[in-house]
Amino acid sequence: MDYASGSPVDERVLEDMKPYFSEHFGNPSSFHSYGFKALEAIKNARMRVGGLIEALPEEIVFTSGATEANNLALIGAAARYKNRGSRIVISSIEHISILNVCKELSRQGFEIKYAPVDKDGILDLDALTELVDDKTMLVSVMTANGEIGTIQPIKKAAEIAHDKKALFHTDATVAAGKIPLDVNESDVDLMTLSSNDLYGPKGMGALYVRRGIRLKPIIIGGGQEGGMRSGTENVPGIVGMGKAAELAKVEMRSEADRLTKLRDRLINGVLDSVPESYLNGHPIQRLPNNANIRFSYIEGESLLLSLDELGVQLSSGSACAAKTLEPSHVLIALGLKHEEAHGSLVFTLGKYNTGEQIDYVIQQMPGVVKRLRAVSPLTPKELM
Amino acid sequence: MDYASGSPVDERVLEDMKPYFSEHFGNPSSFHSYGFKALEAIKNARMRVGGLIEALPEEIVFTSGATEANNLALIGAAARYKNRGSRIVISSIEHISILNVCKELSRQGFEIKYAPVDKDGILDLDALTELVDDKTMLVSVMTANGEIGTIQPIKKAAEIAHDKKALFHTDATVAAGKIPLDVNESDVDLMTLSSNDLYGPKGMGALYVRRGIRLKPIIIGGGQEGGMRSGTENVPGIVGMGKAAELAKVEMRSEADRLTKLRDRLINGVLDSVPESYLNGHPIQRLPNNANIRFSYIEGESLLLSLDELGVQLSSGSACAAKTLEPSHVLIALGLKHEEAHGSLVFTLGKYNTGEQIDYVIQQMPGVVKRLRAVSPLTPKELM
Repeated sequence: MDYASGSPVDERVLEDMKPYFSEHFGNPSSFHSYGFKALEAIKNARMRVGGLIEALPEEIVFTSGATEANNLALIGAAARYKNRGSRIVISSIEHISILNVCKELSRQGFEIKYAPVDKDGILDLDALTELVDDKTMLVSVMTANGEIGTIQPIKKAAEIAHDKKALFHTDATVAAGKIPLDVNESDVDLMTLSSNDLYGPKGMGALYVRRGIRLKPIIIGGGQEGGMRSGTENVPGIVGMGKAAELAKVEMRSEADRLTKLRDRLINGVLDSVPESYLNGHPIQRLPNNANIRFSYIEGESLLLSLDELGVQLSSGSACAAKTLEPSHVLIALGLKHEEAHGSLVFTLGKYNTGEQIDYVIQQMPGVVKRLRAVSPLTPKELM
Repeated sequence: MDYASGSPVDERVLEDMKPYFSEHFGNPSSFHSYGFKALEAIKNARMRVGGLIEALPEEIVFTSGATEANNLALIGAAARYKNRGSRIVISSIEHISILNVCKELSRQGFEIKYAPVDKDGILDLDALTELVDDKTMLVSVMTANGEIGTIQPIKKAAEIAHDKKALFHTDATVAAGKIPLDVNESDVDLMTLSSNDLYGPKGMGALYVRRGIRLKPIIIGGGQEGGMRSGTENVPGIVGMGKAAELAKVEMRSEADRLTKLRDRLINGVLDSVPESYLNGHPIQRLPNNANIRFSYIEGESLLLSLDELGVQLSSGSACAAKTLEPSHVLIALGLKHEEAHGSLVFTLGKYNTGEQIDYVIQQMPGVVKRLRAVSPLTPKELM
């Protein structure tokens, strides 16, 4: 139940990728049949990835992952559009790659402003309106948050950005394939996508770049990907991401319904059976596969290890930020205390989770929590 | 015979990768058994890649390919070590990613100097010594050139760099796995490696970073790869590159012997049977798998298409630079004229090439060349 950290590649995706490892191994820039075959495969994948978000194929720039796409979006736009202004506005609960890129851009002279969220993690649109001024170059608000699952009003955020002639970027890493996305309907200029979050291979991502927008590349070389991302194309990876996007488009609706039911069964079951457990994030406006539950008087990492022994894998926050050892900045932004953030678990469900697994977790959780609370000096007597 | 543009993944490599797509799909930053399994796999791969070049595992930084590694080496060093000086010296026949990164660094205020090569493509060490001065921050000379195969005296080049306290980087993309490499013996500070050139998967590369050297990352985020390269690790890709490096280490010597024989048979056969054909690059000091042959009065691209129809795939230069439509800067640096550069073909042999294939090419080449020369207005009558 830790799909947001890492997802298995769908077997149908792997089947599509396989011929491109050892058989159709051409370089798409090569001027012969092996090259043409690779080029054709990439064109097809570009169409499929575009199709998932209603973009044109030529608006898709393939990258080595969502982190690179986020870097390209912000650093690439900052270099090209600095004449529009020196302010960048992001939400306070963005992914660590957006936060750290903004720290770097701040060292380069950009002024970074953080739009707050409410106690459920929903972006404060009034605050955003106040922060976005005439010298704002770019606004970046994630489509949904990977830790608390909260879905953001990105169409309204894009409108606020565009009212001041700022570009609008959204990190749709965890939202794509879970909820419908339409770059035109939402009027997004730049959108980050991750392959693995669509059950495609790791090491692959894409940035949607609206036609007419030019970004300065962060990886320079042979001018692949329309000059925005150099390096020999990862053909099997691109083919895999394309297939994953196609499957997501077809299967998203029914899978989202299934996951929503499992998610609610999990949330209700755990909150009912474990005393002093609480849901983090918005109760309804959240991803179909996300539950984030806070357990008082518990340290998240010991809970993770105990559950792992029982065969249940979870996360205590974003795996991407695991190296910091800090409490989740997302939960802190909701107004939680450090110890509350440390005692929270992220459940991200996926296509191979079943109702039986949910029931198993609901059944195991009270005992595990009780045992860990029993050894904590902070636990009140009545919970022992 | 275009292995330098794209190579098939070795079946043993693919076998090692497979479990990491859909079974061991954890995120190495995750705090549970799936994460630990992925972390272990990466550690193992890091050891294997290090082993190929006599580096420590912790000196290997995985990237999305050689182009990214070249970018990280030069841009990352330029940002950290600019206090050492503003000059960067590279050879005039570096890969397009090095050349274009240097153009960008030149816009940022660095002074780029190009060390010339002789008519066979060997670096002019006297010229290098003159160009590397006290304010030189970095010297970058490729281990071997992908188009003409010439192997450079990188140990001497590193010495010249270090005499002036400059860092030394070498792009070993096409050399690794073909000739023995030892970062300590050559006293290299930074070395670029490509996975696909080792029969590993595309979309993977690595940068060797000598212990004690710190580079500013070009992709910022969760701080993976020792803070030098963020983004969730491409676990199957890393595992594949590790296996490819291990196989290369074991099989390099015998395979190099085999390829050298095939290469010489090809060179002698073509030069003997096709009038006015010449070898580009050094006759001996060249990669075991590279032949670069110039055909007078011929346009390379029509030759490529004619040979492709006969089932022979070649290149007219670096596939990475195919988008430029310019004649190869490498051949121009050797002193060739534009039309000579355009009439040159790159043969890069690999592990699935056979003696029969070489003989087939030798047999077909005279007829193909003759037909194309017959329709060229430049061809002298006696060659018709």
